[in-house]
Amino acid sequence: MSKQETKSPKDRAGLGFGTKDFKKNTRFLNKDGTVNVRRLDGDFLGRIDVYHSLITMKWSHFILMVLSGYFVANISFACLYYWAGPQNFGNLNHADKLHEFLELFFFSAQTLTTVGYGYIYPKSTLVSTIASVESMTGLLSFALATGILYGKFSRPQTHIRYSKDCLVAPYEGITGLMFRLANTTQNELIETEVKVTVAMNDLKTGERLFLPLPLEIDKIGFMPLSWTIVHPIDEKSPIYNFTQEDFINSDSEFLIMFKAVNDTYSQNVYSRTSYKGHEITMNAKFKPLQRSQRGNKVTIDLRKLDEIETIA
Amino acid sequence: MSKQETKSPKDRAGLGFGTKDFKKNTRFLNKDGTVNVRRLDGDFLGRIDVYHSLITMKWSHFILMVLSGYFVANISFACLYYWAGPQNFGNLNHADKLHEFLELFFFSAQTLTTVGYGYIYPKSTLVSTIASVESMTGLLSFALATGILYGKFSRPQTHIRYSKDCLVAPYEGITGLMFRLANTTQNELIETEVKVTVAMNDLKTGERLFLPLPLEIDKIGFMPLSWTIVHPIDEKSPIYNFTQEDFINSDSEFLIMFKAVNDTYSQNVYSRTSYKGHEITMNAKFKPLQRSQRGNKVTIDLRKLDEIETIA
Amino acid sequence: MSKQETKSPKDRAGLGFGTKDFKKNTRFLNKDGTVNVRRLDGDFLGRIDVYHSLITMKWSHFILMVLSGYFVANISFACLYYWAGPQNFGNLNHADKLHEFLELFFFSAQTLTTVGYGYIYPKSTLVSTIASVESMTGLLSFALATGILYGKFSRPQTHIRYSKDCLVAPYEGITGLMFRLANTTQNELIETEVKVTVAMNDLKTGERLFLPLPLEIDKIGFMPLSWTIVHPIDEKSPIYNFTQEDFINSDSEFLIMFKAVNDTYSQNVYSRTSYKGHEITMNAKFKPLQRSQRGNKVTIDLRKLDEIETIA
Amino acid sequence: MSKQETKSPKDRAGLGFGTKDFKKNTRFLNKDGTVNVRRLDGDFLGRIDVYHSLITMKWSHFILMVLSGYFVANISFACLYYWAGPQNFGNLNHADKLHEFLELFFFSAQTLTTVGYGYIYPKSTLVSTIASVESMTGLLSFALATGILYGKFSRPQTHIRYSKDCLVAPYEGITGLMFRLANTTQNELIETEVKVTVAMNDLKTGERLFLPLPLEIDKIGFMPLSWTIVHPIDEKSPIYNFTQEDFINSDSEFLIMFKAVNDTYSQNVYSRTSYKGHEITMNAKFKPLQRSQRGNKVTIDLRKLDEIETIA
Repeated sequence: MSKQETKSPKDRAGLGFGTKDFKKNTRFLNKDGTVNVRRLDGDFLGRIDVYHSLITMKWSHFILMVLSGYFVANISFACLYYWAGPQNFGNLNHADKLHEFLELFFFSAQTLTTVGYGYIYPKSTLVSTIASVESMTGLLSFALATGILYGKFSRPQTHIRYSKDCLVAPYEGITGLMFRLANTTQNELIETEVKVTVAMNDLKTGERLFLPLPLEIDKIGFMPLSWTIVHPIDEKSPIYNFTQEDFINSDSEFLIMFKAVNDTYSQNVYSRTSYKGHEITMNAKFKPLQRSQRGNKVTIDLRKLDEIETIA
Repeated sequence: MSKQETKSPKDRAGLGFGTKDFKKNTRFLNKDGTVNVRRLDGDFLGRIDVYHSLITMKWSHFILMVLSGYFVANISFACLYYWAGPQNFGNLNHADKLHEFLELFFFSAQTLTTVGYGYIYPKSTLVSTIASVESMTGLLSFALATGILYGKFSRPQTHIRYSKDCLVAPYEGITGLMFRLANTTQNELIETEVKVTVAMNDLKTGERLFLPLPLEIDKIGFMPLSWTIVHPIDEKSPIYNFTQEDFINSDSEFLIMFKAVNDTYSQNVYSRTSYKGHEITMNAKFKPLQRSQRGNKVTIDLRKLDEIETIA
Repeated sequence: MSKQETKSPKDRAGLGFGTKDFKKNTRFLNKDGTVNVRRLDGDFLGRIDVYHSLITMKWSHFILMVLSGYFVANISFACLYYWAGPQNFGNLNHADKLHEFLELFFFSAQTLTTVGYGYIYPKSTLVSTIASVESMTGLLSFALATGILYGKFSRPQTHIRYSKDCLVAPYEGITGLMFRLANTTQNELIETEVKVTVAMNDLKTGERLFLPLPLEIDKIGFMPLSWTIVHPIDEKSPIYNFTQEDFINSDSEFLIMFKAVNDTYSQNVYSRTSYKGHEITMNAKFKPLQRSQRGNKVTIDLRKLDEIETIA
Repeated sequence: MSKQETKSPKDRAGLGFGTKDFKKNTRFLNKDGTVNVRRLDGDFLGRIDVYHSLITMKWSHFILMVLSGYFVANISFACLYYWAGPQNFGNLNHADKLHEFLELFFFSAQTLTTVGYGYIYPKSTLVSTIASVESMTGLLSFALATGILYGKFSRPQTHIRYSKDCLVAPYEGITGLMFRLANTTQNELIETEVKVTVAMNDLKTGERLFLPLPLEIDKIGFMPLSWTIVHPIDEKSPIYNFTQEDFINSDSEFLIMFKAVNDTYSQNVYSRTSYKGHEITMNAKFKPLQRSQRGNKVTIDLRKLDEIETIA
């Protein structure tokens, strides 16, 4: 099944996973393309990518975070001003302590946003100093917040959707391992490439192998429709004559690496996913996505990406 | 005409269009390079690229949009302040309701832009709260607006103009399929590449084929002038001996993919267009664009890009 | 001298200059790498790249431009306010017309920058409207100005300096055409590539040829020092046995295209220049740039890049 | 040891270091990847990359710098205002000179940040002019400061850690030169490439050679774990049968060039380092980094990257 040459160092380590004796039931790539690896390091915090977390955070969470930050900052500065003495502010309403604090809160907001109406104004050196620090802090923090806001807004949106199943279906006289994918966003993808690697235990030796799978087509110039990727299962394939049980027993994992160019933003797009042995469906084929044309426009229905039909 | 090897999966799907039985009179690529494909998806709104629409919007529309947004935001906040009670503002002119509203409108504008003169100022807790929300909203929305403004302004301007016609003209003893293109902007293009694919129905089987056309030159290092792209129509060409009728009967579409580097911005530039069978002109050639040199500067006249002359 | 195969279409048009009958004494590339080509187009203004002009403008010019813009904008708005009536402003000093105008000028500056002290404040609807337009205009224009300021400041600075002369010097038993170049900036360049093409008139037929010149080394992984580029003048070279007069009579121009990656910014760097026949120096060689090492640091002196010595 | 063909110009200059007669004990690349080369130039200041220094500066230094800059700017403008006359400001506390200066300092801070409370306000033409210049200066400088702040914050964090030692260890029947590296940050690296070049003096001729070393694997598609790079020391290797003394006597330096794509930011990542002869450890091998799996997640412990064990 696995031939002699597939055991060369090149094949074994071709994905950087090494050849260590992994336990069974390992999944390297999760369905969403994240890597199932923990990298321990003394400096845990240093490894967190705060910026990327903020940029990819949900809009609702981000807005909530900005509002809370604004609220907390104003409460904090209001406390500082209150500690420094409300009597050091001009035109402050001294009716009661709550009103004093509230007015200091609003003075803080007016300072942080640099709106500075100035009806209430700092009189003593101490509160003026706090206010001049606050206005500078405000400029710097709002620059960060608005930068992230703009970064979120302007981030190229590309989403590759993969079919739920990976099929073994008839193909050109033999069978082929097939899955399909589509770009669900408005921007066009060009210079599209796919690489498929199988991580599997040799059924005889139990050694974990990482073998690249040759594809019918691994590169297309332009991907306006969906794309069905096919690995022809000929006698050279490491999964030749595999049954459903073989896929599971060998703890197979098909690692998919996708690369393209988003031509609207001239930016490279990367996507990853994997199919495990139990996600392989035997003797089925994908239903077509094309619909009857309206006018002379080709229409494809991406909601049908997962639809398959069994072959008798 | 179409040889055996052109029917390999590689050729048939080389552009990602698949081999489905398309209706006649399909145009995949519009003249402006947009794709003639509708992708249906449950999540329609999710597919719209708001940022890209704003960045590529006409300047006049963008300015109008910003002005209206500013006006609507101020009207809305003025209504809120009016609802909260005009008596809660210091120095407000209470002459009549219209003046009250107008002054609240201007107070809103002063808050949104953070100019905050402070002659009119919020007194009650409620209006101070609204004002502190408004100034923060102002900072965030103006950051978006100015970010988009700057994005529009700094966007590399590259425009590739293609000749209106695609010609079949004498070329090196045989004929060649020819069109020409030029960069109409100030920035220089380097590492220029063109790929031409013909989408056509096999005149015998009716099958839709996607065949790459070999070009005389498909890559030039530098494109300061215009570039005439030539596919030599030799006996290996799928359009060998084609007449005007053949181009139309086979529902031919020549798909042009252009790629270059804008060396001022170190950025990749992509452009697409297509020629349909009826846009092929037989027995004509392009007129030269070069004009008499002024001093020792080479001059080309891009207004003549479409000019052709018939060959007797 | 020019062999049969050098006249293939590939060679003739390899740089996109075509094969048109150019006048003598044409220089395609200026020393600074700009292209000696005028592209006429109906839409002249559309071709100017305002952003790039501003980003590459001298700092002194840019600062002068911002200051003048600020001054002119304030003068203009002051005129508008004056026209609308100085009596519509609170706390304005009405001593004389000059003071009125000056105070309106400062009010405008306070509005445009959104500093908004508010001692002077707008009272009527008309002036409030103008002020609210001005503060918005201020936000948008300062966003453009500061964006360009930051763009200028953060622009990767790479400057390739070429030797003044191109030499014909002894090389490995034959002679070679040589020039050298160096990176004068602090950032390191990697993945460095050079292409040299000669544009020359065939001395027999007078036809303008564009011929790529093979180089001893055309790619180096890393360029911390200077780099001497060598075209070995063997019997296959189109300039084999050329004398100084041949270089001038053939109206030769050596077009140099340089490409590298600035690894600090992960950005591609492009540079171009050319040498004309009269800039070729026969029988000379470059003096070394390396100086005695200080400590164990290699030192090169870029001020000596142009220094050559004649070979007896 | 070094074969005939290794002395071709291509090999000798493949890294751009030329073949000049370097002194012994030269180190081209420091451990941190910076280049051990001084480039002398008339224009020293022009070569400093201020932007890059600021972006890579420690956070604590940057914040200190911004605070000091803010303080110095306010002191300077306060002096200017004081020179122009404190009596030209409305509502200024003239109790004593210190208070006058302090209030001018706070007025300056309110102007620079555009908060502009306006309780203290400029009255004369001169101080109004200074204030309008200050507010504009404030907008421009805070734009620079916040731009750099955001640049620092959003900069892709990639850090490649190399093993302290480079080993000569048994490999597939012969020995191999080995080192390992890992990505210590959260973002995944793909399309990983390594090039190794040895700079060494020919033990016979003393000539400085730059020879590329062929690697077992020089490219991996994906690097979630650590990667051990191996140069098989076969009879073709320039370091065949080298002893520890040979490495030192030949003044060997192994130059490592690493390149990858950070797929979160779609950005190229470059890293360099070197190992000198005395950093080569004979007869040792790396300890594995993998730890017992927790759940079905692969865990590697990067703190063990340098751990080696001696081979008896």
